[in-house]
Amino acid sequence: MQEKNRQLVEGILYTDQYQLTMAHLYYRHGLHERPAQFDHFFRRYPDYGLHKAGYCVSAGLEWLLSWMKEARFTRPLLSHLGAQKSSSGRPLFEPDFLEWLENDFDFSRLNMRAIAEGRVVHPHVPLTVVRGPLAIAQILETALLNQLNFQTLIATKAARIRESARGQLMLEFGLRRAHERGALAGARAALIGGADYTSNVGISHLLGFSPKGTHAHSMIQTFLAMGQSELDAFQAYADLYPDDCLLLVDTINTLESGVPNAIKVFENLRKKGHRPVGVRLDSGDLAYLSIQVAKMLNEAGFPNTSIVLSNNLDELVIWQIVTQISEEAPRYGVDPDQLMGRLIYGVGTRLITSQGDSSLGGVYKLVSLQENGQWVPAIKISETPQKTPNPGNKAVWRLYDQRGKATADLLTLEDEKPQDFAELMLRNPMDHTKKRRIARAEVSRVEPLLINVIREGRYCYDCLPIEGLRARRKADVEALDPGIRRLMNPHIYHVSLSQNLWDVKEQLLTRIKNGGNPNAL
Amino acid sequence: MQEKNRQLVEGILYTDQYQLTMAHLYYRHGLHERPAQFDHFFRRYPDYGLHKAGYCVSAGLEWLLSWMKEARFTRPLLSHLGAQKSSSGRPLFEPDFLEWLENDFDFSRLNMRAIAEGRVVHPHVPLTVVRGPLAIAQILETALLNQLNFQTLIATKAARIRESARGQLMLEFGLRRAHERGALAGARAALIGGADYTSNVGISHLLGFSPKGTHAHSMIQTFLAMGQSELDAFQAYADLYPDDCLLLVDTINTLESGVPNAIKVFENLRKKGHRPVGVRLDSGDLAYLSIQVAKMLNEAGFPNTSIVLSNNLDELVIWQIVTQISEEAPRYGVDPDQLMGRLIYGVGTRLITSQGDSSLGGVYKLVSLQENGQWVPAIKISETPQKTPNPGNKAVWRLYDQRGKATADLLTLEDEKPQDFAELMLRNPMDHTKKRRIARAEVSRVEPLLINVIREGRYCYDCLPIEGLRARRKADVEALDPGIRRLMNPHIYHVSLSQNLWDVKEQLLTRIKNGGNPNAL
Repeated sequence: MQEKNRQLVEGILYTDQYQLTMAHLYYRHGLHERPAQFDHFFRRYPDYGLHKAGYCVSAGLEWLLSWMKEARFTRPLLSHLGAQKSSSGRPLFEPDFLEWLENDFDFSRLNMRAIAEGRVVHPHVPLTVVRGPLAIAQILETALLNQLNFQTLIATKAARIRESARGQLMLEFGLRRAHERGALAGARAALIGGADYTSNVGISHLLGFSPKGTHAHSMIQTFLAMGQSELDAFQAYADLYPDDCLLLVDTINTLESGVPNAIKVFENLRKKGHRPVGVRLDSGDLAYLSIQVAKMLNEAGFPNTSIVLSNNLDELVIWQIVTQISEEAPRYGVDPDQLMGRLIYGVGTRLITSQGDSSLGGVYKLVSLQENGQWVPAIKISETPQKTPNPGNKAVWRLYDQRGKATADLLTLEDEKPQDFAELMLRNPMDHTKKRRIARAEVSRVEPLLINVIREGRYCYDCLPIEGLRARRKADVEALDPGIRRLMNPHIYHVSLSQNLWDVKEQLLTRIKNGGNPNAL
Repeated sequence: MQEKNRQLVEGILYTDQYQLTMAHLYYRHGLHERPAQFDHFFRRYPDYGLHKAGYCVSAGLEWLLSWMKEARFTRPLLSHLGAQKSSSGRPLFEPDFLEWLENDFDFSRLNMRAIAEGRVVHPHVPLTVVRGPLAIAQILETALLNQLNFQTLIATKAARIRESARGQLMLEFGLRRAHERGALAGARAALIGGADYTSNVGISHLLGFSPKGTHAHSMIQTFLAMGQSELDAFQAYADLYPDDCLLLVDTINTLESGVPNAIKVFENLRKKGHRPVGVRLDSGDLAYLSIQVAKMLNEAGFPNTSIVLSNNLDELVIWQIVTQISEEAPRYGVDPDQLMGRLIYGVGTRLITSQGDSSLGGVYKLVSLQENGQWVPAIKISETPQKTPNPGNKAVWRLYDQRGKATADLLTLEDEKPQDFAELMLRNPMDHTKKRRIARAEVSRVEPLLINVIREGRYCYDCLPIEGLRARRKADVEALDPGIRRLMNPHIYHVSLSQNLWDVKEQLLTRIKNGGNPNAL
C-alpha cells in the first residue's frame, strides 16, 4: 500500500464516521472544548461456549499510545473530509470545523489514566479513563476500542493456554489464519499473555524474540517427488541445522516411518557431537502418539529430546492431552511426568482468533461532563442492569486479603480513600441485595489500579518490554484464587462499588425513573 | 509505527520462520530454483455452529498482489536474518543464501493463476495456483494464506447477511470489535460480499465509498448532562444535518421518548422543506420495536423514513426479525412488506469477526515438482481422506446446466478439455462409490475458472473496483441452486474429479499404501 493510502486508512481516519459527525456538532454548539470524561471497560469475560474466562489480561496500551502520538488531521486527510457531501449536495463538514481539527486537535490534550498493560482485569472496572476536550475524547473512541479490545482478547486466551500448558514452552503459530494484519497485534498479545515465542518472523525481530519454526510437510514431499526418501530429507535438514534439528515426523506415518527415520538421523548427529532437539507431531491422536514416540525415543537413548505438538490446540485440547497422558503413559512403561516435561505446544488458529469467542465487547462511555466548572455525572439507563454504566469520576482499587490473594476490585468516588477506612462496604454494581462488609484488618493491601498515561500534555506511561509485561501478568494471575483461574466454570471475581458510589448511581437512576432529567437542577 | 519497523513487520518478513529455514535448505541443496507447483484451497465451508455456509466468496487477491509487488529482501531486513543464531551460536542463515534472497528473489518470477476475486468458490478447488522456483513459491505461503483466508471468510459472511437482508441496505459497523488492523481488509471484504457501505472512514475514502454514521448515545448524554433534553439534542442534530437527519432513539426510552421526540424534529424539518432520513434502534426487541416505531412514524405522516437496526445482528438474527415482523406487524395494522422495505441493517462484530467460525482453514500444498524437465505429481497421504490433496497440475471448470445454474466444479488434468467430451464422469474426490455421469448435452456451459495473474514476469490480473467484484459475486450467487444458498443445512455443491485425475490420484495412493515411494521410478 502506498504511504499516502496508508496514512488515509491507518491514521486519524481509522475511525467510525459518527465520531466525526458528533465532533462537528459539538464544535457548532461550542461544546468541543468542554471537559468530559469517558470510561473504557468491558462488561463480561470471553465466553467460549463450553468454557469461559474468569479473568482477562489487559494488553494493547503501548501500541494505542504510539498510534495516538502519530494521528493528526493533516491537509490531505482534511481534503477527504471536506469533499464529503450531505444529501443536499452541500459539504457535510463546514470549513471552520476542519480548521479546528487541523490546528487544535491533538490527543496529548487529553488526560488519560489506565490500568497498566499485562495486568489481570475484570468486567465493569474502568481500564482506561480519558478526560479532556469533548470532541477530542469522542474521536478517540473507535481506535481505542479497536486496539485494546483485540489485544486484551488474545492476551486472555494466551493466559488460559499458559495455564493448561503449565510450565512447558508454548509457541504462537497462527499467522496464516489470523485476521490479516491483526496477526501482528495478536502475536504481541500472545507473547504478553503467555506464549514464549512466535513463528511470525517480523514481529519477533521487532520485539526482540527469536522466531521459531523448522520445516513443513512440503520439504519431505519435495524429496519424495525427486525420488528420494523421508530419511534423505531429514538428513538434509540435520546437515544444515545440526544443533537445531527438530523434525516433523507425520508426513508418511509417524510411528512406522517418521520416528524411526528421525532416530537414525539423531544417532548420526550424536556421533558428530551434536544434541538433537526433537520431533513434531501435527496430526492424529496427539496424546497416544506422544506416548509411543516418547517410548521409541527413550529406547533409542534420546530421553531428553522435545516433542512438539501442533494441530488445532487450545486450552481444552491441551488439558485433554495432559489428562490422557497421565492415565495412559504408565501402561506403556512411560513416565507421564517425564513425558509432559518434554512437550512443547504449537498453538495456531484457536489462539490468534480466540476461537469460540472472537471479540471482546469493550465499550467507551461518557460518564461525566463539566458544567460551570463542576463535574456532572452522566448516565445512560438500560433495560438490562448490566448495561447501565457506573457514573461519574471514579477511583479503582484492588483489595488483597491476608494470604496476599486479590479478593475484590473496588470502584469508589474519586476522592474516597478506602485504605483509611476501618470497614469497607462492597456493593454489587447490579444487584442491591448483594453486599459484603469487610474489616480493614482483613485487607493486607489496597492497591490503586489506575496510573497516569497522559498528563498535562505529556505521555508519561512507562512502556515495558514484553518480559516486564509477562512478569506483571504472572504476578497478577498468581494472586488469583484457584477457583477464578480454573478453565471451566470459574468462580466470579468480586467487582464492587463503594457505598458512596452506589448512592450516587441510585440517585441518578431514581431521578430518571421518576421521569426527570437526572442532571436537572 | 516508524516506517522502518513497518517494513520489518509488514514486508517480506510477514511470514513464518519455517518458510525461511526450508528455503535455506533448498538453496543449500540446489533446489531453490527447481520449478514447483503449489495449490491453495480450503477444505470445508465455515461452520458457525447451528448453521453453516454452502458456498464461499473469494476475496483478497488484489491486496495480496499489491503486497507481493512491494515485498523485497532489503538490506535492513537481511541484517535481521543474518544476526539470527543457531543453538551453537553460529549464524542460522548462511551469507550466500542471504545474497540470493537479496539479488534473485522476486515474486514476479512466479507464474500465478487464480479464480477471480468476488467469485463463488468451493472446497478442494484450487483458488490460487503458484508455479515457479521452489524457494520463492514456498516463501509466499504464509502471506498468501493470511490475506486470502481472512478476506474470503468475511466476504462469505457478508454474502450470507446479504441473503437474509434481501434487497435492503446493509452497513458494516465492526471497526471497534475487529481484530485490530484486520478491520481494513475486513471492511473491504464485507463490501465485496454484500455490505453496501461501512462506517470505517479511512477505508471508505480509499475505496471510493461514502462512510456512513450519524451519532451515538453519548451525544444525547452530553445534552442531558448539561441539563438539556433528548429533544434538544435531536434538534441540534437536525439543525446541523437537515438533509441527513437520522436519530438514535433508544437512549432514554424508544417508544415513550425517542420516537415522539424524533417526530417533533421531523415535523420541524418538513416545515422547512427537508426530508428526514429516519431513526436507529440499538437495543431491545428490534422486531417488536420496529413495528411500533413504524406505526408511530406512519401515523405522523412519515411512512418513508428509514428504520436502522443495529445491536449484534447477523444472518440468523435478521432472518428472525424478518419472520417476526411478517407474523406480528399485521396485528398492529402495519404492512409487513412496507416495513421490511424501510429497514436498514447495521452489522458489526458478528460480521467483521465472522462470529461462530472465526477462521477459514485455507491451505497451500505442494502438488508437483519438475524433475528432469518432467512434472512429477507430489502427494501427502493423511489418515482422513479429506486431507489428502489432489495431486499434480490441474485445470478447474464450472459446469452449468440447461437452466444456467452451476451444477458442479470439475478438476481435471491440465490438458483435458471437458467441453469437447460427449459425456463427463464426475468422481467424488474422497468417496470412490460416489460418481455421476453427465451428458455434454445437459451442460449449457463449461467455464474455465483459473485466470492468469502473474505470467512471464508480469502482473496481468485486472483488478476491478468493488462494484465490479460485487457484480461477479451477485451473478455467481444467483447461479446457485436455492438449496445451496439457504442459510441452514445447505445442500452440498458437487466438486468432482475427472476420471483421469481420479486415476492419477489412485495410482499414487496405491503405491504409497504398498510401502513404496510414490514417485520412485
